[in-house]
Amino acid sequence: MHMQDLIRQLREPATTKIVLLVADGLGGLPITPGGKTELETAITPNLDKLATEGTVGLSIPVAPGITPGSGPGHLGLFGYDPLEHIIGRGVLEALGVGVEVGPRDVAIRGNFCTIDATGHVTDRRAGRIPTSTCVKLVEKLRAHVKIEGVETLIEPVQDYRFVVRFRGDDLGGAIEDTDPGRTGVLTLEPKPAAGDPASAKTAKIASEFLRQAKGILHDESPANFATLRGFAKHPNISSFADVYGLNPAAIAVYPMYRGLARLVGMNILDPGHTLEDQVGVLKAQWNSYDFFFLHFKYTDSTGEDGNFAKKVERIEELDKAIPEIVGLNPDVLIVTGDHSTPSRMKSHSWHPVPLLMWAPATVRPDYVTHFGERDCLQGGLGQILAKSIMPLAMAHAGRLGKFGA
Amino acid sequence: MHMQDLIRQLREPATTKIVLLVADGLGGLPITPGGKTELETAITPNLDKLATEGTVGLSIPVAPGITPGSGPGHLGLFGYDPLEHIIGRGVLEALGVGVEVGPRDVAIRGNFCTIDATGHVTDRRAGRIPTSTCVKLVEKLRAHVKIEGVETLIEPVQDYRFVVRFRGDDLGGAIEDTDPGRTGVLTLEPKPAAGDPASAKTAKIASEFLRQAKGILHDESPANFATLRGFAKHPNISSFADVYGLNPAAIAVYPMYRGLARLVGMNILDPGHTLEDQVGVLKAQWNSYDFFFLHFKYTDSTGEDGNFAKKVERIEELDKAIPEIVGLNPDVLIVTGDHSTPSRMKSHSWHPVPLLMWAPATVRPDYVTHFGERDCLQGGLGQILAKSIMPLAMAHAGRLGKFGA
Repeated sequence: MHMQDLIRQLREPATTKIVLLVADGLGGLPITPGGKTELETAITPNLDKLATEGTVGLSIPVAPGITPGSGPGHLGLFGYDPLEHIIGRGVLEALGVGVEVGPRDVAIRGNFCTIDATGHVTDRRAGRIPTSTCVKLVEKLRAHVKIEGVETLIEPVQDYRFVVRFRGDDLGGAIEDTDPGRTGVLTLEPKPAAGDPASAKTAKIASEFLRQAKGILHDESPANFATLRGFAKHPNISSFADVYGLNPAAIAVYPMYRGLARLVGMNILDPGHTLEDQVGVLKAQWNSYDFFFLHFKYTDSTGEDGNFAKKVERIEELDKAIPEIVGLNPDVLIVTGDHSTPSRMKSHSWHPVPLLMWAPATVRPDYVTHFGERDCLQGGLGQILAKSIMPLAMAHAGRLGKFGA
Repeated sequence: MHMQDLIRQLREPATTKIVLLVADGLGGLPITPGGKTELETAITPNLDKLATEGTVGLSIPVAPGITPGSGPGHLGLFGYDPLEHIIGRGVLEALGVGVEVGPRDVAIRGNFCTIDATGHVTDRRAGRIPTSTCVKLVEKLRAHVKIEGVETLIEPVQDYRFVVRFRGDDLGGAIEDTDPGRTGVLTLEPKPAAGDPASAKTAKIASEFLRQAKGILHDESPANFATLRGFAKHPNISSFADVYGLNPAAIAVYPMYRGLARLVGMNILDPGHTLEDQVGVLKAQWNSYDFFFLHFKYTDSTGEDGNFAKKVERIEELDKAIPEIVGLNPDVLIVTGDHSTPSRMKSHSWHPVPLLMWAPATVRPDYVTHFGERDCLQGGLGQILAKSIMPLAMAHAGRLGKFGA
């Protein structure tokens, strides 16, 4: 039986509240042999207190050795198997700029490019035009593109990148990129998967989009055409309410994480700008929801920057927010990350992520008194797949009945 | 490849003996912050000696966060995936009173109830009649119920509860309960799942059973009718002999656990009444079998009662039985539970269960010297699914050959 079907069967109504605090890219590495990781270096008295009272372990985002992007990383934390639910690039890009993607939608990444008079590509990124130019060109496309039988939405992203969303009936997403991948050749026609009429329909629409775009952008320079990549349908994914019977809210500053939360049916709250703002929203909305996903970005971005000291600071900032969250008396508080982002690697990594579960009424404590990578190895949760965290949270919140007699 | 198919392929004959000692509901929780669990509190020199010489870990009965009933809990310990083999309520109840359930059978839980002159339910449990009355009423039903084309077996359970087993060709088990779940309404007709002729056939038989029962019980008071619940077919499950090539025996005081053992084809020995009796049976039958499942109930029942001190006592009683078992020189001795039953929660729980594997010839010891929840976190077995215990036991017993060349 599939775990989510089992949870649907076993879940029980309760008035308990669960907080999932995601410190993006939390896990790290020492920068010198024998040294400490970012989390081990940070002074975190509040997280250490939670680790002492609760139980810890490590979360494996997807599978051993697999480094996830933000999409699979968060799907795992939300209890969905990231290997079963693939979020296409177009969808992720759309979510990242706040474009909703629903079951009737196909989302696509667009690149402005430069072609010569014979249509051959001379620059696949149109000289990396600034975002302001991108915005202006998108507005021009919006004003003139008109395709029958489909609702077309275009949104700028950054530099030469934009997003297109087609909304309509029976649209498929299995279409090859039109970016030829090199210069000196013609752009490609959108080619649907063989024997897939839905994707053939989208391909025809995309082809018409490109034909019109070529005319509209003809006089522009250097961005006088566009390519389309990462065609993707909305993934067929059950909502949080459907699987868990929870009424969830997301408090995330960055659009991408709001988008991922929306994908599983979370209510999106206006998060403000700082972690303090986010905790303020949590307090203000405490009585309106029974699950809160609170996303803290900067443990990842400092790691991506390779800034060990700044990542330590950001972890300490997170630690300072803990007492106010605990003061709300959640029944279950989880602190973890969607993946590791060691500042030594300046990138996401596959290393298991420190995981903390605090649940005063139901947790079985272990001997661990500090929240750090090596301490977590001694914890009661062991090393578990990220997708197991939600079932455990549901159990600790008294929201799962007994399986069988 | 399915693990049980692999074991069928790799298993080798041997003269070694395996003892699986199940302390039902063994795992627990501290009752005070910073305190110890029941097992950590108990004085267990003999178990500690086994832990020192052997290896320990924790067993996850079904999956992280999932609290099992006794059925799934034991299937896991017997090496069957509890998510693949669902044992219906009727089957479990039948097994509990020693009624065999085979592939041509549908087993059903029956409740004697009270209805008024218009057929409306006035008491769903017939005033909780004593078991002696139940026995008398079941005898009356046996004497008079006669249904064409099916063999009907009726067996008293306890108080107002009994079991019905229909044996015949092409019987289905997908039928809704006839107990309306409340008083003041009529009982329901057995309703089969749509488009399921086998279940429709059973429903027709059940309907005839109820029609006859109404006549037979008409003059009785207070139990003048019955309802049927938990219709269930025999689960399609391989025997212990088939999977492991073992000749197994069960020594369990409670019928439910004898029934679960019978479901996987174990021989059921007369267990006596006490743990001392059970160990006596183990000694007496030592040469007749190569696998023994010994079930100790009271670590669960004291937990269910919320009696921390009594659960500690029962664990100490179990500890005292260890030397006599070890004295028989088993090749592999496993001590664990089918699930946790923390006295703090007064119920089964999802928390992993302490697991001990002692096998003088083949075990790799760890550093652990005490058998307790937190000690087990440091053990050599790690945290494993319950269904992995039997393959490990087979390996430690020298009963599994090499996979591949």
